Parts: sequence; structure tokens; C-alpha cells
Amino acid sequence: MGDVHIVRRRALAAALEESGLDAALITRLVNVRYLTGLVSSNAALLVRADGSAVLATDARYAGIAAVVCPDLETVVDRRTALVLAERAAAAPSPVRLGFEDHHVTVRQHRELAAVADSLLLAPLEGAVERLRTVKDETELAALRRACAITDAAFEAVLPLIRPGMTERELALALERRMVDLGAEAPAFDSIVAAGPHGALPHHRPGDRPLAEGDLVTMDFGARCDGYHADMTRTVAIGRVADWQREIYELVAAAQRAAVRAAVNGAETMAVDAAARDLIRDAGHGDHFPHAVGHGVGLEIHEAPLMGYDKTGRLSDRATITAEPGVYLAERGGVRIEDTLAVRADGPEILTKTTKDLLVV
Amino acid sequence: MGDVHIVRRRALAAALEESGLDAALITRLVNVRYLTGLVSSNAALLVRADGSAVLATDARYAGIAAVVCPDLETVVDRRTALVLAERAAAAPSPVRLGFEDHHVTVRQHRELAAVADSLLLAPLEGAVERLRTVKDETELAALRRACAITDAAFEAVLPLIRPGMTERELALALERRMVDLGAEAPAFDSIVAAGPHGALPHHRPGDRPLAEGDLVTMDFGARCDGYHADMTRTVAIGRVADWQREIYELVAAAQRAAVRAAVNGAETMAVDAAARDLIRDAGHGDHFPHAVGHGVGLEIHEAPLMGYDKTGRLSDRATITAEPGVYLAERGGVRIEDTLAVRADGPEILTKTTKDLLVV
Repeated sequence: MGDVHIVRRRALAAALEESGLDAALITRLVNVRYLTGLVSSNAALLVRADGSAVLATDARYAGIAAVVCPDLETVVDRRTALVLAERAAAAPSPVRLGFEDHHVTVRQHRELAAVADSLLLAPLEGAVERLRTVKDETELAALRRACAITDAAFEAVLPLIRPGMTERELALALERRMVDLGAEAPAFDSIVAAGPHGALPHHRPGDRPLAEGDLVTMDFGARCDGYHADMTRTVAIGRVADWQREIYELVAAAQRAAVRAAVNGAETMAVDAAARDLIRDAGHGDHFPHAVGHGVGLEIHEAPLMGYDKTGRLSDRATITAEPGVYLAERGGVRIEDTLAVRADGPEILTKTTKDLLVV
Repeated sequence: MGDVHIVRRRALAAALEESGLDAALITRLVNVRYLTGLVSSNAALLVRADGSAVLATDARYAGIAAVVCPDLETVVDRRTALVLAERAAAAPSPVRLGFEDHHVTVRQHRELAAVADSLLLAPLEGAVERLRTVKDETELAALRRACAITDAAFEAVLPLIRPGMTERELALALERRMVDLGAEAPAFDSIVAAGPHGALPHHRPGDRPLAEGDLVTMDFGARCDGYHADMTRTVAIGRVADWQREIYELVAAAQRAAVRAAVNGAETMAVDAAARDLIRDAGHGDHFPHAVGHGVGLEIHEAPLMGYDKTGRLSDRATITAEPGVYLAERGGVRIEDTLAVRADGPEILTKTTKDLLVV
């Protein structure tokens, strides 16, 4: 594990060099984890442009830090960010120190600025998040594992779905199966939305029993080694009305179009448009009120941002979701979602469950 | 539900009046929830010193906001904080707008400051968190429910504990039972630490099987309506060595002392000292490396801060934990923890499981 984190810290050091910064103070815990492997509720990392680094964490995590990142100089002090700022300021000349301006609060910034006059604080502007958009093999392996567990849980739970089961029971069955299959936890609060609830993209599963004739949307995923799978499938209970099949086939076509568009170098807006244009042309433009997807990895929502108004390009090894939907108020909805990796030779779809309409 | 949130917003308005602020922009989601009842991943609230308020959230949550807080003017816009800052700045004269300086990032602050010259941003300094330390009856009821489920899960799982069961299996059994008993979720990642792992206060449950002669520490709790229970019990497997009984009785005495000290008006430091002095006098001062407890409510860790170096006083209706421990490296440890409410006539212990040493 050590090597991969050293490579990541070197990449950050190179970015610092380019920005004319002497060092970066990393305080977002997910970024500290990415750069060191340490999972902690109190840690910070100083990375210098020469590639050297110092970790700070408190006594609760000192033992685990020694195991996870034995190669890293570690300061045990619960004032993690401040103690590293003091360390940075100890250099003989003024230090241009990047800080995570999208994470550091106004109060923390005031405290950092008070450490020393020789500390010149400058916004880092998501430098680590940008690195994180390009997944390495360790990360792709964790995502593949998380997606495989997600698929297997769906397959195991599918035979249990029947009228009378509540949304919440179905959500729990999926979540428990994922954990039984080796997930460290569900990746997020599962959505199970049956019948008219399917019209609400973010419905929280409740006590409504599934009924014959419902479309049931399940949006769930497993987390493995901190990496999040995210999959949505919609199934029909017992029978399928014409309007249901029509929006299902439309969403399935839109989802395929988004996946096809998710190639190395594509504009994120173009991925969104690939799905959205199809849905709009079918007269359902107003019934697809969310972005086509999002980056996914150590966070369930991360860079790249995707949507009809989001600029940016997909890079090789970016991992994203493709999840168009159509939602008809008081009737129901369909969403179909995969987690996929953008690769030079075309998308690698990580969630492999069929996207044919299943009637259970 | 509406009334209690109106009362809370009036209390904030009174605090604004006292601080000479015209309005507060609340962006911490847990504080928006406290003041409106809305659970959302994107919302903000403007509260004026005259008690009026405007909520902002995006289209995904507009429907639920209309149900949860129909009394509140609601702006549907995903630029939640900015749209409310614009609203505040629309007043004819300059506006002193409090912002949550412990939450607003440097980047967000820059954006808010750019809204209008007439907006005078001033730190709120945890005004809502201070209100939240004093629980109302709605909150105490949710905490009592969460603690009762925590107790019931412990009672149900106790007969299952036996040598060979892994820490992780035990953690899952507790968590699943809590959900089966009506918890919306576990309040936090459960800790189950057996044998030598008990020496690590924050051990993550792993595949080590429980063994005859282990002390097993279980730190877990249920969440109900957003309120967190937090309980720790340590049990012995099969038999109890003298050193185990000795530290168990010491920690139990220290825990009773902390609970007794947790009276209305007490210095938080004095609560910590009540437990810490006993443990130190028994020669284990170095083996109790964490604070005696913490505030608990809508967050698992919230105000009041408690610990040997934390100033502040407990107020009537504050809810806190009392959780001393003794940890002996490579041998094992004991922690005993209750969630309790500070009341004028003495502490109300909300977790009611016995603190006698159980041998299973």
C-alpha cells in the first residue's frame, strides 16, 4: 500500500511546483486518506513541493498510522492543522502554503493566518480532488469489488421481491446482503421507491408495501476499502402497463447513449446531452430534473461534476455514474444507473446487472 | 412539528438582537434541520432579528419542505446560501448578516462577500449550537426512544455472545437488532473490541473471534428522528481475572462519580475530574487518554465540549455522555458509558442497561 500513496503525494508535489507553491496543507480527511491511507477523524498532512511530507493526527490514531503509513514522519498532536502550519512556518524564508479553500472554514483560516507572518496562505482550489479524478489500479480494483458485491446483492434479493414487502424491508435486504457479501457498509442510504413514490428521485424508503403493477426503483451500492459503488435498477411487479414499458425503454436508451458518450476526452456536458436529448425528443424533457451522473470514488459524489451546464472533460480512468431517469408525478418513474470507468478504448461498465426490464 | 421550530427560530432571533445582528444565514445542514425540521443535503435558512425566516432548498427537496415546514417562505434554488444572501441584501439599508464562521469555507465566504457591498458579514460563533445544548421535550422524547432501542438491542444480543463469534458479527448483530427495533440507523459505526483490542478506545471490529477470558467492549447506539443514543458496556466471556474485575470496578465507580457530578450548573471540567481523579488515584491516570464525555443530540458529538481542559457549564436539559475507561496496552480495557440528560433535580440516565459486570 505504501507505494501508491507515495506516487500520489509526488503527483501533488508536482502540481504545487507548477502553481508556485512551497507546500500544501491538506485538511480534508478524504484527501488525507487518499494521500496516506490513514482513515481518521482528526488528521492533516503537509506535502512540500520537494515531495516530502509530514502527517499529524491525535493519540487515538497514532498506532494505526504507524501501521498504515510507516514511511511518513508523524506528529502526534490533536491540533493537527495548526501544528503542521507551525512546522511549515519554521522554514528560514517566507513559505507559500496552499490550503484547501473549499474546505477550510473562516474560523480555521483565521487561526492558520495567525500562526506566523512568514506564512503566505494561498488557495489550493481542489488540487487533490483533481488528482483523484484519475483512478489508479488500486482504486479501480476496489471499485470493481464494490460493484461486484452490488450486482450480487441485487441478484440475491431479486427472488424475494413480491407484493406486500415494504420499501424499507427491500432496502434493508439489499443493504444486509451487501454487508454479508463483504462490503464494509452500504455506500449511501439506499433508495427504494415503489409505485407513485418512483416519481420522487430521492424518495426515502418507507412502510408502503409493494403492489402488483408497481415499478420499483432501487438505487443502492456497496462500499469497499472506502470506494463507493452506485447502481440503480427499476423492476416491474407482476405486470407492465404500456406507459411503464414506454418510459423504461426510453430511459434504457438514454442510459446507453450516455455510456457510449462517456469516452476519454468527452465534454461532460456532451454526456449529459446524449441522454437528455433523447428524453426531450420523446416529450419528457421536464421529467428528467437532475444531472446525468457524477464522479464516484472515495466519495459517493465527487469530481468530475456532470450536468447540462457543467463544463469539463472526462479523463482516462475517471469513474462516473450514468443515471438518467423519467419521473411522472403521482404515477411513477424509472431510473437506470451504472458505475463505469472511462478508458482509452471505451467505457468499462463496472456494474454488470442486466438493464432489460425485469418483471418479478 | 411546526410549533417547536418556530420557538427555536424565535430563540435564535433573540440571540441576534442581543448580538446586534440584523439576520443570520444558517448553512450548517444540521442547524437548518434543527430550525425547520427539513432534512436535506442542500438547504440554507435566513432568520431575521424580527423572527421572520426564509428557507432555500433545491427542486429535489421542495416537495418535502412544503410538507415539513409549510409555515416557512421557501425559495427553490440550488444556490441556497447565495440566494438568501441576495435576499438579505435587498433591504434598503446595510445589513449586518451573521454567518456560521465555524462552517462557511473560505471560498463560500468570498462568494457571499461578493453579493453586495451593503452586506456586512459577521461571525455567528456557534449561536445555533449553543441553543441546541438545551434540549426541548421533542428532542428528549427522541433521545429516550433511541436509548430504549439501544438497551433493548443489547438485551436481545447478550445471549448470542459466545466464544468464536467475531467482533464484526457481534457489531452487526447489535446494529441489525437496533434497526429491527425501529431505529432509523445505527448512530455511528459500532465499536466491538475484544481481548487485547479492548486497549484501543477506537478499535474497528474485525475478524478476531471472541475467546474465553476476554473482556468485550461494545460502544454503539441507535438513531431515532435524527437523535443519537450512545452507550458502552463491557462484558466478560466465561471467567473474570482479578485484574479485569479490578479495572471494571474502578471504571464503574468513576462512571458513577461522573454521572453524580453532572448536575445543572456544574463545570464540565468538574465532571471530567470526578471520574479522572478516581482513576488517577488508583494508579491508572495514564490509562484514561480521552475526555469523560461529550454532548449528544442531532450530532453524535456536539456541544457541550467536555474534558479535563474544557471550560463551560452544564445547563438544565443538556444531554451528554459519561464514559470513562481504562485501557491496558496488549491486555485489554473497560469502558462504561451512558447517555444522560442534565435536569434541575439530578441527572436522568437515558440508557438503562445494568452496569454490573456481566459474565456471558
